[in-house]
Amino acid sequence: MEPAPAAVLLGWELMAVDPDAGTIEVAFRASEQFLNPAGVVQGGFLAAMLDDTLGPALVATLRAGEWAPTTDLHVQFLASARPGRLIGRGRVVGRGGEIAFLAGELLREDGVVIATAVATANVRRS
Amino acid sequence: MEPAPAAVLLGWELMAVDPDAGTIEVAFRASEQFLNPAGVVQGGFLAAMLDDTLGPALVATLRAGEWAPTTDLHVQFLASARPGRLIGRGRVVGRGGEIAFLAGELLREDGVVIATAVATANVRRS
Repeated sequence: MEPAPAAVLLGWELMAVDPDAGTIEVAFRASEQFLNPAGVVQGGFLAAMLDDTLGPALVATLRAGEWAPTTDLHVQFLASARPGRLIGRGRVVGRGGEIAFLAGELLREDGVVIATAVATANVRRS
Repeated sequence: MEPAPAAVLLGWELMAVDPDAGTIEVAFRASEQFLNPAGVVQGGFLAAMLDDTLGPALVATLRAGEWAPTTDLHVQFLASARPGRLIGRGRVVGRGGEIAFLAGELLREDGVVIATAVATANVRRS
């Protein structure tokens, strides 16, 4: 499948996925385009990366014809990030009917966690 | 002041700001680059726009030498957005010492609210 424009812009790359466990690991490329006036990656772009980590963790568990828009995303910003490679780890924490609870974190390559997130998604059938 | 790269990428434009009231109105240009596999703006980019709405509402109230990194951002996604112009409205809801509480929403040009956000920021002095 062709990656979506948002994934291309974020430098999204699949590292590992385990649909049975509901876990995923992806990589991103934080670009100079994402910098805020303080010269670090604007927090919203870290949120975009986390959205593109938690969402795919759930999507990997869905059946054909299902999709799952995110209804809520809560991000905590623990540390700042410079342009370069970042790692996203996401997981499906729980599933109750059509509601899915997701969590994950974004790390620098040296293992420092720069942001964590929880999200809620609504599984729908076409 | 030269706009930051993240603001340029989001098509950020100041419409109105009232530092005494702690309110701001800004505009964005959602680009085709921000689309997800469903062909709508990836939620994370809406979060990035809200971060660049709530943050500036606070920054406009700060003194010289102060800055305020966001610690938490919580976004609810009410409706989807297509590429084009979006409006952000942000406000400082409260301030207790170095902690500031922010809120706002992102609207389509026809007035439909597509996402709302609350954020917490930490005011620092250099």
